[in-house]
Amino acid sequence: MASELKVIKIGGNVIDNPEMLDSFLTDFAALTGPKILVHGGGKKATELSHKMGFAPQIVDGRRITTDQDIEMVTMVYAGLINKTIVAKLQQLNSNAIGLSGADGNTILASKRPIKSIDYGWVGDIEKVNAEFLMSLIEQGITPVLCAITHDGDGHLLNTNADTIASETAIAMSTLYSIDLIYCFEKQGVLADVADENSVITSMNESYYNTLKSDRAIHSGMIPKLDNCFSALKQNVTKVIIGSPGVLKKDCETFTTLTL
Amino acid sequence: MASELKVIKIGGNVIDNPEMLDSFLTDFAALTGPKILVHGGGKKATELSHKMGFAPQIVDGRRITTDQDIEMVTMVYAGLINKTIVAKLQQLNSNAIGLSGADGNTILASKRPIKSIDYGWVGDIEKVNAEFLMSLIEQGITPVLCAITHDGDGHLLNTNADTIASETAIAMSTLYSIDLIYCFEKQGVLADVADENSVITSMNESYYNTLKSDRAIHSGMIPKLDNCFSALKQNVTKVIIGSPGVLKKDCETFTTLTL
Repeated sequence: MASELKVIKIGGNVIDNPEMLDSFLTDFAALTGPKILVHGGGKKATELSHKMGFAPQIVDGRRITTDQDIEMVTMVYAGLINKTIVAKLQQLNSNAIGLSGADGNTILASKRPIKSIDYGWVGDIEKVNAEFLMSLIEQGITPVLCAITHDGDGHLLNTNADTIASETAIAMSTLYSIDLIYCFEKQGVLADVADENSVITSMNESYYNTLKSDRAIHSGMIPKLDNCFSALKQNVTKVIIGSPGVLKKDCETFTTLTL
Repeated sequence: MASELKVIKIGGNVIDNPEMLDSFLTDFAALTGPKILVHGGGKKATELSHKMGFAPQIVDGRRITTDQDIEMVTMVYAGLINKTIVAKLQQLNSNAIGLSGADGNTILASKRPIKSIDYGWVGDIEKVNAEFLMSLIEQGITPVLCAITHDGDGHLLNTNADTIASETAIAMSTLYSIDLIYCFEKQGVLADVADENSVITSMNESYYNTLKSDRAIHSGMIPKLDNCFSALKQNVTKVIIGSPGVLKKDCETFTTLTL
């Protein structure tokens, strides 16, 4: 029986709230057993781009990663946010290491091909280096992954953090039994987005498809949930979506996904 | 006989010159055997602080690291410069990993005590984690260290890159035979700062003291050379100061330091 590994993703809204982030990191550090943290961006990136004198370019509702953007997100995600989290985990006696995809060739990606939209320096994941992550974990070190990958050709690429979490979970599932946990600002997937108390405690793929066609679930939740079901289909044992409090043993409200 | 390890530091002027940096990284990647790269900052940090709307605070000729500065240098040193170098080394088939002192608890420092000047978030090195660096090197991975450390209490600290290089060399000298190489924009230590051809090819400590009292050597070169002699006194085998070209086998002009 393979040992358990938790792959935990925190979203930008948690990172933007210092108290919520500190509370999350305290619970994360207290988790026993192997674990990997994946973090998103947050508002710092948009704030910095404004200070640097450029506005995000949005095409068809999607952000384009220009030359300036990739420099900026590398500074904010791989620099400020990643190292702030790692220093706090060290304070909490959790021996963390911050990694972009370039570090130790942890995540190799390819620049998204230009079709109707040129997304710029955006990467689609090719390979997660499970052996290297395992070598760190076996030394008692906790990898902290930011949303930057590389193409092996000298370029850094902006990559969706939800996808990094699910692809990392899938890659590690040949070595460990994986729990994949998404923590965001809500307590789980809501049946009614206007009602915080409408958390769906268990959702299978057919129910998901129904909610999607009813448009009860839409926009940003769709790629997140697609990532979750993709992970479940590829050997990931358990997928949970909840608030940062989901790491606490007595947390009762969250969404468990099943096939 | 311990195997050899090269600890190589590149300065900000090399980083600011894209052609010089690319040429250096090509030579660095081609070096066989274990190696560690330490890099300084460069102009990007000052440029970014101006864009972010604050100017460096200088007291008695020394830069003060304010709250804003430590965020900014973490973004530039640990984010942009570190990850750009790591991605380029990956392109050159050198499996590099970028590390701040917080990552894997690689460099623990303490905030400089406030005496006549409060330097702010500046760290003096307490301990370099030689065992962790060795574990990476033994996996064929090349550590790339930026000039950011941590205090174990959740704070990131700005730390002189020359000192990181010499302290890393000293810590690793119990495990390897160390060559410590400083690469900067000149061909070596100059006897006459106005004459690029006045490179001192060999300098011992007594000659250094003479040049210092004659004021032929002054300002920024003094802490750099103090670091070099400190390393030689603490088990580092060889210390060289030269241009990035010093990594090439046929480079003839550089400064070798001896006790």
